[in-house]
This record gives sequence, structure tokens and C-alpha cells, in this order.
Amino acid sequence: MAYFNNINKIKFEGSTSTNPYAFKFYNPTEKVGGKTMEEILRYGVAYWHTFTEDLSDPFGKGTAIRPWDKYTGMDLAKARLETAFELFEKLDVPFFCFHDVDIAPEGSNLKETNQNLDTIVGMMKDYMKDSKTKLLWNTANNFTHPRFIHGAASSNNADIFAYSAAKVKKGLEIGKELGAENYVFWGGREGYETLLNTDMKLEMDNLGRFFHMAVDYAKEIGFDAQFLIEPKPKEPTTHQYDFDVATGFAFLQNYGLDDHFKFNIEANHATLAGHTFEHELRYARVNNMLGSVDANQGDPLLGWDTDEFPTDLYSTTLAMYEILKNGGLGRGGLNFDAKVRRGSFEPEDLFHAHIAGMDSFAVGLKVAQKLIDDQVLEGIVEERYQSYTDGIGLDIVEGKTDFHKLEEHALGLSEVKHQSGRLEKIKATINQYLLRAYAGE
Amino acid sequence: MAYFNNINKIKFEGSTSTNPYAFKFYNPTEKVGGKTMEEILRYGVAYWHTFTEDLSDPFGKGTAIRPWDKYTGMDLAKARLETAFELFEKLDVPFFCFHDVDIAPEGSNLKETNQNLDTIVGMMKDYMKDSKTKLLWNTANNFTHPRFIHGAASSNNADIFAYSAAKVKKGLEIGKELGAENYVFWGGREGYETLLNTDMKLEMDNLGRFFHMAVDYAKEIGFDAQFLIEPKPKEPTTHQYDFDVATGFAFLQNYGLDDHFKFNIEANHATLAGHTFEHELRYARVNNMLGSVDANQGDPLLGWDTDEFPTDLYSTTLAMYEILKNGGLGRGGLNFDAKVRRGSFEPEDLFHAHIAGMDSFAVGLKVAQKLIDDQVLEGIVEERYQSYTDGIGLDIVEGKTDFHKLEEHALGLSEVKHQSGRLEKIKATINQYLLRAYAGE
Amino acid sequence: MAYFNNINKIKFEGSTSTNPYAFKFYNPTEKVGGKTMEEILRYGVAYWHTFTEDLSDPFGKGTAIRPWDKYTGMDLAKARLETAFELFEKLDVPFFCFHDVDIAPEGSNLKETNQNLDTIVGMMKDYMKDSKTKLLWNTANNFTHPRFIHGAASSNNADIFAYSAAKVKKGLEIGKELGAENYVFWGGREGYETLLNTDMKLEMDNLGRFFHMAVDYAKEIGFDAQFLIEPKPKEPTTHQYDFDVATGFAFLQNYGLDDHFKFNIEANHATLAGHTFEHELRYARVNNMLGSVDANQGDPLLGWDTDEFPTDLYSTTLAMYEILKNGGLGRGGLNFDAKVRRGSFEPEDLFHAHIAGMDSFAVGLKVAQKLIDDQVLEGIVEERYQSYTDGIGLDIVEGKTDFHKLEEHALGLSEVKHQSGRLEKIKATINQYLLRAYAGE
Amino acid sequence: MAYFNNINKIKFEGSTSTNPYAFKFYNPTEKVGGKTMEEILRYGVAYWHTFTEDLSDPFGKGTAIRPWDKYTGMDLAKARLETAFELFEKLDVPFFCFHDVDIAPEGSNLKETNQNLDTIVGMMKDYMKDSKTKLLWNTANNFTHPRFIHGAASSNNADIFAYSAAKVKKGLEIGKELGAENYVFWGGREGYETLLNTDMKLEMDNLGRFFHMAVDYAKEIGFDAQFLIEPKPKEPTTHQYDFDVATGFAFLQNYGLDDHFKFNIEANHATLAGHTFEHELRYARVNNMLGSVDANQGDPLLGWDTDEFPTDLYSTTLAMYEILKNGGLGRGGLNFDAKVRRGSFEPEDLFHAHIAGMDSFAVGLKVAQKLIDDQVLEGIVEERYQSYTDGIGLDIVEGKTDFHKLEEHALGLSEVKHQSGRLEKIKATINQYLLRAYAGE
Repeated sequence: MAYFNNINKIKFEGSTSTNPYAFKFYNPTEKVGGKTMEEILRYGVAYWHTFTEDLSDPFGKGTAIRPWDKYTGMDLAKARLETAFELFEKLDVPFFCFHDVDIAPEGSNLKETNQNLDTIVGMMKDYMKDSKTKLLWNTANNFTHPRFIHGAASSNNADIFAYSAAKVKKGLEIGKELGAENYVFWGGREGYETLLNTDMKLEMDNLGRFFHMAVDYAKEIGFDAQFLIEPKPKEPTTHQYDFDVATGFAFLQNYGLDDHFKFNIEANHATLAGHTFEHELRYARVNNMLGSVDANQGDPLLGWDTDEFPTDLYSTTLAMYEILKNGGLGRGGLNFDAKVRRGSFEPEDLFHAHIAGMDSFAVGLKVAQKLIDDQVLEGIVEERYQSYTDGIGLDIVEGKTDFHKLEEHALGLSEVKHQSGRLEKIKATINQYLLRAYAGE
Repeated sequence: MAYFNNINKIKFEGSTSTNPYAFKFYNPTEKVGGKTMEEILRYGVAYWHTFTEDLSDPFGKGTAIRPWDKYTGMDLAKARLETAFELFEKLDVPFFCFHDVDIAPEGSNLKETNQNLDTIVGMMKDYMKDSKTKLLWNTANNFTHPRFIHGAASSNNADIFAYSAAKVKKGLEIGKELGAENYVFWGGREGYETLLNTDMKLEMDNLGRFFHMAVDYAKEIGFDAQFLIEPKPKEPTTHQYDFDVATGFAFLQNYGLDDHFKFNIEANHATLAGHTFEHELRYARVNNMLGSVDANQGDPLLGWDTDEFPTDLYSTTLAMYEILKNGGLGRGGLNFDAKVRRGSFEPEDLFHAHIAGMDSFAVGLKVAQKLIDDQVLEGIVEERYQSYTDGIGLDIVEGKTDFHKLEEHALGLSEVKHQSGRLEKIKATINQYLLRAYAGE
Repeated sequence: MAYFNNINKIKFEGSTSTNPYAFKFYNPTEKVGGKTMEEILRYGVAYWHTFTEDLSDPFGKGTAIRPWDKYTGMDLAKARLETAFELFEKLDVPFFCFHDVDIAPEGSNLKETNQNLDTIVGMMKDYMKDSKTKLLWNTANNFTHPRFIHGAASSNNADIFAYSAAKVKKGLEIGKELGAENYVFWGGREGYETLLNTDMKLEMDNLGRFFHMAVDYAKEIGFDAQFLIEPKPKEPTTHQYDFDVATGFAFLQNYGLDDHFKFNIEANHATLAGHTFEHELRYARVNNMLGSVDANQGDPLLGWDTDEFPTDLYSTTLAMYEILKNGGLGRGGLNFDAKVRRGSFEPEDLFHAHIAGMDSFAVGLKVAQKLIDDQVLEGIVEERYQSYTDGIGLDIVEGKTDFHKLEEHALGLSEVKHQSGRLEKIKATINQYLLRAYAGE
Repeated sequence: MAYFNNINKIKFEGSTSTNPYAFKFYNPTEKVGGKTMEEILRYGVAYWHTFTEDLSDPFGKGTAIRPWDKYTGMDLAKARLETAFELFEKLDVPFFCFHDVDIAPEGSNLKETNQNLDTIVGMMKDYMKDSKTKLLWNTANNFTHPRFIHGAASSNNADIFAYSAAKVKKGLEIGKELGAENYVFWGGREGYETLLNTDMKLEMDNLGRFFHMAVDYAKEIGFDAQFLIEPKPKEPTTHQYDFDVATGFAFLQNYGLDDHFKFNIEANHATLAGHTFEHELRYARVNNMLGSVDANQGDPLLGWDTDEFPTDLYSTTLAMYEILKNGGLGRGGLNFDAKVRRGSFEPEDLFHAHIAGMDSFAVGLKVAQKLIDDQVLEGIVEERYQSYTDGIGLDIVEGKTDFHKLEEHALGLSEVKHQSGRLEKIKATINQYLLRAYAGE
């Protein structure tokens, strides 16, 4: 049976589709800078927000109307799987992502849970044979169940460390089985509620040990996915150890893990950490640590993780700029870690929302590519930093100077002349590029 | 001449002093945990906020009444020096701190500026001979002058890099001359106003080069002070590269500088970065990177650096807890990087404010020491993490396990039992310790 | 049967109780400023957080261990009622508060829901006959059920307006039946998710109509409770119409309701609105609109409603100062709208947490009363504003002047002399009062 | 002499202008919805940010290069005046705004200050005779001078109340003299640094008295400008009494002033208060209190008033939507209360920045008008709220119902069916309108 009978495959507006739903800006086969939109954008659907989420909030019960929710247990898991591949096909997305608990219910013990996973993973593999949609990444949910109340790999309880390891071990096996491009670690409970009862050193050391064991096990089984840390500063805990990309980078270096991991960067998590999305992407990019992206947006006036579908074209433009400057996302992708609003509870809202997000990043891509083609920002940067291309500047960059020579140089300077940073003009230029992108200028 | 004629040396309340100003809780000679308060707390006065600050704000002109402001130029610098040592003596503080521009006016060129500095440093050295007050740290102000508009060591202009180097070179020489215990780097303009015109990679690389040259020069001249990075997330720039301790730690590791630097942690900067003061201290401590402290406080409802004198006893208690667990501050100290409110513009407010801050940390010290003496938090931690002291937990900590063994262990577990984290009880206990500290219970 | 067998009635520490649980600072019969602590503090237990809450969060399932949860439906409701009065007695609290859905399950339609309520309310009335604990306030939960997805009295759907009215009607009847001192309106969904689909004017007008009908109906049935609006700026919605006390006051005046309502002020809601708790209390107090208090606290670094038990003694002191200056809370009280942390999931944590909160406000009361007895802040205010007690100042206050006279006065002034606001000294004084309160000085 | 010799009058890009500077989207004579852009947008230049501002910040000295700064005192005031009308003409703006201290230096006493003002106002009046540019509003700066340290009309010092009154009296006279359309009150220091030394009731009462006297005096002299309150939550003080529009509305109603005042709404102040710009506009609009607009933008990740030139097209679109739904701004306008960034210190940046802002609001206008023409949001609202157009809904709106009838209605309901709020679809639609605006679709 099909759950979205009233919805045909979503096509670009200009096509001959009679579908009431259409992409306005995303055309998977359209080439931008030499590659197709599909190849560059590598969109993924998040299983949890799309097939599992009930749209409850801390003050209200779930509102989502999901036809497949008439089932329970493994039947529900199978119905979700069916609906997932129906939606993947209709949205024409190349990737999806999941946590273990999204796809199969937990059993009464770990063994039973793993059996449930095996059943669904087997079915999923079959679906994938007939589908273009691949697994961008999977992960283990080590935060929802009460057993993770005090953390997972950073739990104060060694049994939970072991339990978490077993879940990640299974996750790595599933990732291998399904050909996942990446494997993600989001430490929702890897942090503290309060410093007052927390041994931060032991917890971080244990996290480091845990990651090393995961690296070793993936190697052992020949699972070559890119490992990704997903930073988030807080929520659900008061402080999470992977606060932002820089904090994660400090951790990885400190525990000798920086060669094995990159980052999965989420826009809304950047907001919660006090950063822009593009900052996190830039910081990862220049340190060669940009792996994949959780494409959503937050509300800067709300202090929690709203996980909205991305529609801010400034944000998608600047994100795509960083991604293009990174040479693309490599094995990563743009996963819509985003949920429809609680008031958008009808099944068709899942399509409206994904179309909104996919169109928004398509616009971002085109604007960013045009900015790069015209060397707009590159030209500004080149001019601003030209003093480092010869003379004392070149000496600095090439490591040929020291405080003595620099002082000598400085003593000979008359007052230094600066150039305006021209921020207002640059912002106006971005607006012009944004508006002209659609007009094809 | 003396500027604070109506104020005698501040003494502990219980003494026979007839001074209207008195410490209520700080008694420099009182022993806490085997050392005197003075030895542990190592208080410092910040030259800029105390002798230079005019209490202007972005919407208002300065209000500070400072009798020494009748002078200008080098005369003003000399008057400030005189007043400084008068205040140091009356407050009985063991340390002070300054930026180069705090103590001497800039000349019409760098050479002249350095001459002005030499004059004042010579006088300062003389004052110090007759005073117990030492130099906790000095630094170069590479942010106030318009030349630093686009940064200092991270400027887009190589001349400014050189100029900054020359100023730090001089700063290191002054530090050596005056026997500074530490040398601080606060990168007020080392960051960006916007990513749109910024080469983040080059700027961070240059910062790394700059710090290496500073390390080399200090070694060359035999200046053995501890080097300190002072993190701040933003203000004056939109983003500063030393966002918080973790970000600074990532940077230091990435550029091979982590053996040469520790952190100077400021409470208000922690707040701006979305952290508690104690978080920053803890993170630095467990990574062996805690160097010194800028003792102030912010207002969590205001989004700028208010630099208030510290009076929150929760904060001083938890800060002193981290410091005591660190084995003290070593060569660091508690520098009052704090300014009186704009409405507290009278000279005597400088005394009220320092007394408030010194008393607050003295209370914090006593409460923290008592918590440690009674092993209050240590007992909680020991009990919570006991599972890592034998069995699978000990194997984890000792690196004797892997995902196979952990899975095997997990498969054998029945549902794990947890213990409550007891946060409410712990907080009530902190309150009891706080209130009973004064009563001597 | 009893759910808290291991816990006896909580008594003040100094008593002869052998209970392991004891108040350290709250002594209900101790007199402060002429009244007993119990009379002044009027503590209330929140039914929802204490008996219904499961400690789930957006990323995790409930962790609470509650022995009564073995029941379901009306049996669960009855078990909660029994446990409630057991806890009330053991904590010795004079008040409790509830929403309709806290005490009885919803039926398959409104009629059935009301029948369930009638059953429990009848039983509750019986329990209350044998108990000292009275109903501080009740309210209708018009936000949890999916029917309130787009609001209640401000819903875009008139049926929901009607449904909400029916629930409040029943709530007023229950309040009268149980002798409630107040009736609270918290508009959790009375706001908007987005302005883009919202008729703000119609929604606010409807809210105004709704409140007038509630006032009329209470009058009709002779229910003389104080009506209270509980402001909250956001969460669950993006913007709630009762953003803060001032916004609520604007609304009440605009709709001619300010004579019929006061405010129920929650500390954590103040934080979310960018205010201190004491600001909201002061603003309400000076406008004669302070009704009751939801006593909890938030975390200024977290952007959601954490509803922590109040332990910050600065906050409890300044809150009690406002309450004492208000001549007390009148028919209001201090309701612990607070939940134990997710990690504090054991039944006994309910006691630890309430003891922590009750002790914290008891300390706040004693410190505030001492500050008032000594006229600490009153003296400062009197001195600061003395210029309004005669001359041009008195003319201003008495309305005897105009811009002509004021200009004439101003033209005659030489530069005005100000006095320092002495904030640092005042804060140090507050610390001294706090620490000395326990010592009885 | 002219200060901007290299800049000709700014014209719309499509014109034959050979100017290197051009509007890309703002065409003053282009009609949108029946009126010209100039008539609708009513742009104003802020004297302070454009001619007086030196671009200092709390950590740095001013960087602005302003050719007229070679003058001092009254000569500087005259040079600024000349430069102002040169810039007005080149930007072709219909309005400007100023504080008293922007246009003339303060003298050694109030009388002298007023004489300086008279001189400049006389000259300004002459300039205005030959210019199209009118005075949108003027105001008195009662916050920069140290005399206002503890407030102006809310000062604890009655002399300052009088002084403030004299300055506003003069301001009203100047406004009348120059034909100002509005008179603005921004209470930068009308608030508190701390509640601990503040008599909030007296201060607010005095503010109320002050405003009544202003109203009376304007009436007396026949100055019929619209009076405007400009809300701001904080900065420079900890809390300002005009926190946001709702708080201001509460105040105006409480003191019987709501018929005499409307609001001057600033985007960045909305951000600081935790609101969107459009929220503040909407709230004012539906309460008939929307007077004028300070057109700028803030950075939601920075906690201070950055006063950036507005370039966010979402914000300008939603702002213009509210303004168009308000029937325009009446006597108000869009005043660029915005400053170039510290790094944009060259004179020509003043043009780049104003062009950026004017173009951004022009785009916003066109998109908003198109949204209204197509009844995009109106259609959504009409459909969502249709239940209030007949039956019980109409009874509610017409006041023909009560809790009895509503309960009866509710008891007869089967479960209510809701419609999705469709937020994601609406946001995608806004994007499409934005992108298509330029293409003329």
C-alpha cells in the first residue's frame, strides 16, 4: 500500500508534471559549475523526523497525523520502512540517515533489539536494491532510553559504557552492511547536568577511549565510512563535551583522534553555540575537518533546538559558499535534520517542508556558484591581504622573520594607512546576487 | 602628594583599625588549609580599570572623578603611578597588572612611545623596591588604537603584524625588567567583523606564527614568565579566535604551542561564551592549562562585557574550589579585571569595590576549603563513579577491553540500575556550607 | 497504603526528630517580623511536577520512579491523590495547586472528563477535611491536548474557544467547591508560532472576551478567588501574548480587565523574558498587581524553562524583599512550580528538592526582613531621592510645575553635583547580611 | 566647499547617470501600489550616525575619516550642517532627524547651549528653504552628558528633572521652528542600573509627569507633531522603562498618555528585547500605535546595539508588510538609525551604506506589495479564522455568548478537526515572492 497516494514524484516546476507539488528551484539534473545539483547537494532525509517524530513538545502531546501509526511494534517499523522508500522516491532524494531506534523497536533485551534490527536491515537492503537512495549515515541513539540518563560513553556507570559500545558496534556492522558513507556520533548525553557531581576528566578520557575502540572495530570489519562528530553545545544536558567544532577539534587532537574524524555540522547547533552556521563550516573547512551537514535552521530568539526546515536563503547561500570552497562535501551530504512544525501535522506537510528545504539550498548553491564564478569575495580577500604577498608580509608567511626584524620594520613605519572593509557594500552585493540568481543574470 | 588621604590602610574588621573601610572576610594573614589567604588568593589590581578608566559607555561620556586627571601626558602617567602604589599599599595587595598604554602615553611614533615606557618603567621599578606589590602580568594593548582596526597579529596588513610584534617585544622586555610572573595575550581584535572579507586560515596561521616568535624571543632574553592566552568570544569583534578555553586549546595544539601557554580565564568572558566561570576553570584544570584568573563577573541578562567586581558568592566558591583542586594558581593570581559602575564614580568607590571583591573571594575560599576538607563533592564523585574501580569498568580505564568484550558484557546485563544524581540535595548542601562558613561551623 | 514509608514528617533540624530529612532553615512556627514563617511564605506543592511528571525531555523518555505509576486511569488518579496528601502532611505545607488534567484523566468526551473530575474532586474534598493543606489555586490545562495546537481562547477555531471556555467554567466551579484562594490563567498556547498566518488582533480581542466571560461567571457563581495571569514570553509557542508582567498589564488595561486580575509571577519565566525575578515582582508590586508566585529558578545559560527548585539565595532574598514590601502575598503563596532534575528520579528526591526550596526561601525571608528592619535599602533610597522632598522636587511630585518653571530653574543651575550610586558597596552589604543571617547577627 | 566631490547625485541604476554609485532597487519616482517609493518609504538620514559618529567602540578609539573633523566647536557644527545638506541632496532623501547635541555643541551653561542651538537652527532653516529634505523628527539627547548619569526625567535628582525639561522645551520649540513631523523620546538613561538603590514607582511617576508637561507645552506653542516613544530594553542601563512596545503601551495607558503618543520602533531594539522587528510593528499596528521606524538591524548573536544598516530582505519585507497594512507610516518615516561598521571608516562608506539600506527597503516594499496584491497572507488568514464568521464563532466575536452557551456548544462537539498551519509552505512562498520580485514576475 502507499501512504502518499495523492502525491506524485516531485519534479522541477518547468517540467510537464501535473503534480500539485513541484520544486521551484531544485532541478536535480541541472548543472551548476560543472556538476549536477544532485551530485553537489547530496540531499538526505532524516528517518527520525520524517517517519518517527510525533510532534510532541514539552508542553503538548504529539499532533502528527501519520497513516502508518495505526501499526505497532515491528509492524510499525515495517510500515515506516515502506513509507520511507515511497517518500524517498517521490522526493527523488539520493540519501537517507537513521538512528538504530528509528528503524526498529527495542526488544526486551539487547539481543532481541539486535534481532529486530537485523530483520529491518535485511528488508531495508532489499528496498535499497530497487532504489537510488543510499545511506548517507547511520548512528546509534544512546540518549533516549532512561539507561542513558547519566550519559553513554561518558556515563558514570561502566555497564552503560559497555552497553553503548555494544550499540555502536552493531551500528558499525549495520553501516557496513548497508554501505553507509559515514558514521555519526552525536553525544546527546555526553556532557553534564552539573559540575558538582561530575568527574569531567574521567568522562572525557572515557569518551576518547570509546572513540578509539570504534575506530579499531571499524578497521577490523573493513567498514571504511568517514567517522563524524556532531557538535552541540547543550540540550538535553547543561553542557555537552562536543560544544562546537572548535571544542570537538580540541578534543580530537588531545586524544589523538583528529586523523579519524571529521565533523557533521548542524545549523541549529551552531546557533545554540553562539555561532553562525557559516562560521562552523568555515572553521571546519580551513582545518580540513568538514565532513557532512545537518541542514536545518534555528530561531535565534528561541533558546532550544527547533530543528526547522532550512528556508533562510542567506544561510543556504553562505553555507553553499563554504561547501563549494571545500571542493564539495566528499562523502558527506545535506541531511535534513529538520522537523515540520507542530502545527504542520498533516502528511503532505512532509513534502511541503522538504521541497522548501531543497529549493532553498538549490538557490543557495546557484548564488554561491555565481559569487565564486565572479570571484566576488575572492577578489575582496585578495586585495585586502595583498601585503602578505611580498616584502615583510611574505617574510612573515614564509617564516623568515622574527621579533627583531619586525621591530625594525615597525620603527621605520610612518602611520599605517588602512582600507575600508566595505562591509555594507559587500552585503548589498550579496543581496544583488541573491535577487539576480533567479532572473538568471 | 596622596590622592586618598581620607583612607587608611584597609585591615580586617576585627583588627583595631579606626579606618572607616575594612575587610569583613579577607584577612591576609589568616590561614586556610595551611596557607595564608594572601598566599592563596594572590590578588591583583588592574591598572586600566582603576587608574585609567573614565567610565564612559557607548551612550555616555566618562563620569569618573579622579583627582589625578588634572594632569596630562607624561605628568598624568606619573600621577597615576603614584596613585597606584598608594592604592596598592592601602589595599595591601600583592600584585598588579597593566597594558603598555595604561602606564604611559603613546608618542608620535613607536620610538617615542617606547621612550615614554622606559621612563615610567624605570620609575615603576623604583616604586616596587619599596613595595610588596609585584607585577602579576603585563601585556600589550593591540586593540585600542585605530591602527588595529582590522586586527593586530591577525591584521590583513603586514605592517600592523610587524607593529604588533614590536609592541609585544617591548612588552616582554618590560616584563623581564619588572619581574613579571606571567605575560598575557588578549586578542581583542584577533577575530573578524564578518567572514565575507576574511581569510580565516591566513589570520589563524599568522597568529600561530606570532605566538611562536614571542616564545622564541622570551627564551632569547631569558624571560621565564608563564605565557597566557585570555579567551573571549566576541566584543569588540563579531567573533574572536580565542572564543573560549576549548577553542584556545584547539588552536594551541594545532599550532604546536600547547606546551608554552596556559590560560588566563575571565569570568565575564565565560558568560559571554555561554559557559559558567567554573566550567572554564574546570576545563582548563583537567587539561593542565589553568594559569591565572581575571576575577570579575558579568550580568547574564546583558550581552556585553560589564566587567563588574565579583560579589556572587556562589561563583567565588566554585571558582576557588577549582583553584584549590588545581593545587592553587601557581604563578597566576586573581586579578580584578573589573571596573566600578558608571554611577560609582567617586574615588572611594575604588576601595568599596575592591573590598567587595576581595571579601567575596575570601568567603569563596573558606567555603571551598571546607567543602574539600569534608570531601563533600569528592565523596559524591567517588560513589558515583565506583563502577570504574573494578571489573569491566577498570578494564575500560586501563585500556584492556574492546568492542567485542564490551558487547559480550552488555549482552549479559539485565536492566541497569542507576542512582539519583541528587542535584537538589547537593545544591542545598552548598547553601548550608555557604551560610555556615561565616559562623565558623 | 503509604508511598513514602521511609520518610517521617519533616521537621526543623533543631527539633528532636529522628528523621533523616530535616529543614535546616525553615521552621514554620518561627516568627519573622511578627508573623510565623508559615503565614508569610504560604508554600504550595505543584501537583503536576510532583505527582504527574515523568521527567522526560525532548531527547529522552521519562526516568521518574514513582511507586504509584503501577496504576492507570482513575486508579492512578486516586493513587496520586493519596500520595499527594501523604506528601503534603510530611512536608507540612499549607497549600497545593493543580491543573484539571493533573488530578483526573480526560474521558472520551468532555462530559466524561467532567465526571472524572467530579469523582476526584469529591475525594479531594474529603482528604482536605482531615488536612491543613488548602488549595492555593487551580487552573485548566488548555495546552497539552492536540486540540489546543493552534491555541485555546486565541485559537483560530471557534470550537476550541468554546471548549476552552467549558474547561475554565468547570475549573471555576471546582475552585469554588474546594475553596481555592486564586484561579490562574497560564496561556501556554495563547500566542503564535508565526505572524505569517496569525490574526493577532482577533486573537487578542478574543482573549479579552474570554477573560471577561470568566470574570462574569465567577461572579455569577459567587467564586471570589483572586484571578491571576501568569506571564511567560515563549515556549511552547514562539511568542506568547502574556510575554511578561508589563505586557500583561498593557493587555489588561487595554481590555478593561485590570481591576479583576493580578499576576502569578514565575522566576524562570522572568529569566526567559530577559528580566530578573525581582524586576517582575517590583514592577507588579508598584502597580499593585502582585498576586502570587511560582517559586522556581531557571538557568540563565539555557534557553528553555528548566523549572528548577529554587536554591539561589540572592534570588530568594530579593524576592522576599519585594514580597515583604508588598505587605505579603495576600491570598497568594509561594507555589513550587519546580521539578526535580531528570537525574534525580527517585521518590526521595521529591523531599530533598522541596526541602531545598523551602529552606532557601526561609533564608531569603530572614535576610530580607533583617534588611528591612535595619532600613538598609530604604535608607539608601531615602537619601538618594531627597531632592524630591522640597523645593522644585516637591513641586514636581505635587504637580505644581510646568516646563516654563522648570526651564527657569535649570537656567539658574550651576553644574549639578551627583552622589555615587555605591552599587559595589551595596552588593557587599547584601553579602554581609546573607552570611550573618544564619549566625543570628 | 563640498565634502563629497567624487560623488554625484545617486540615481537609479537604469538611469543615464555616470555616477559610480547607484541605487539598484530604489527608484524614488517608481510607483508601487499607487504611490511613489519616495512617498511610501519616507527615508530619513540620522544626523548623529552620519555626521557626528567617530566609530569608537568600548575597546577602541574612533576610526572615522571625516573631512569636516578638521574644525572644532561651532565651526565644526557649521561644517557638519553643510555636509549634511550636501549628502541629503546627493542621496535624494526626503527627511532627516537629529538630537540637539548632534547639531550644536553644548555651551558652558544651558543659556549658551541654547544660543548655539539658535544659531545652527537658523542656518538649518535657511538650508531647508533650498532643499526638499524635511525634518522627520528631532529630540533632546538627555543621556550622553555625565549630568544624566542617574537618569533624566527619572533621575533621583530633581535638578536634573528640571534640566531635562528645559532641554525638551527647547527641543519642542526647535521642532516647531523647523516644521518637524514628529518629536521623539528615547529614554536612554530612563531606567535603572540596579533595583537595590532605585525607587521605581517615583521614577515612573515622574516620567509620566514629564510627558504630560511635554504634551501641555507642545499644545501651548501650537506644535502639532506626533509624539513618539522609542522603546529599548537595555543598554546603556540594565533595564529601561520603555523595554518594548507592549511595556511602553502599559505605561502610556497607566498614566493616561496613550492618546498623545505613538511608537518609534527600532529593529535592533526589538532584537535586544527578544522580539522580531515585525512583531513590534504588528503589536503597535493592531493597537493603532505605530508611528515611525528606526530602520536598522542588529546581530542576533551579539548582545548589544550594533545599529547596522538594514540589509536583511526578509526583515525589510515583513516590516514593509506591516507598514503597508497600517496604511503607511502617516507622519512617520524610515529613519536610518544606523552606523557604518568601524572598519568602514571612509566617507564614501556613508553612501554605500545608505544605498544598501535604501535598496533593501525598496525590495522589501515591492515584495510586500506583491504579497498584498495577491492576498497571499490575507487568504491564509481568512481561511484559518473562518469559524469566527458564523455560528458560535460569530457569537463570540459579537459578544453574544457566555460560559453557559459555550459549554453547551463544547459538550456537543465530537473531536475537533484542525487544519495544518502550513508554515513551511508559507515560508517557501515568501522565498518565491522575494526572488521573483526582481524578475518582475
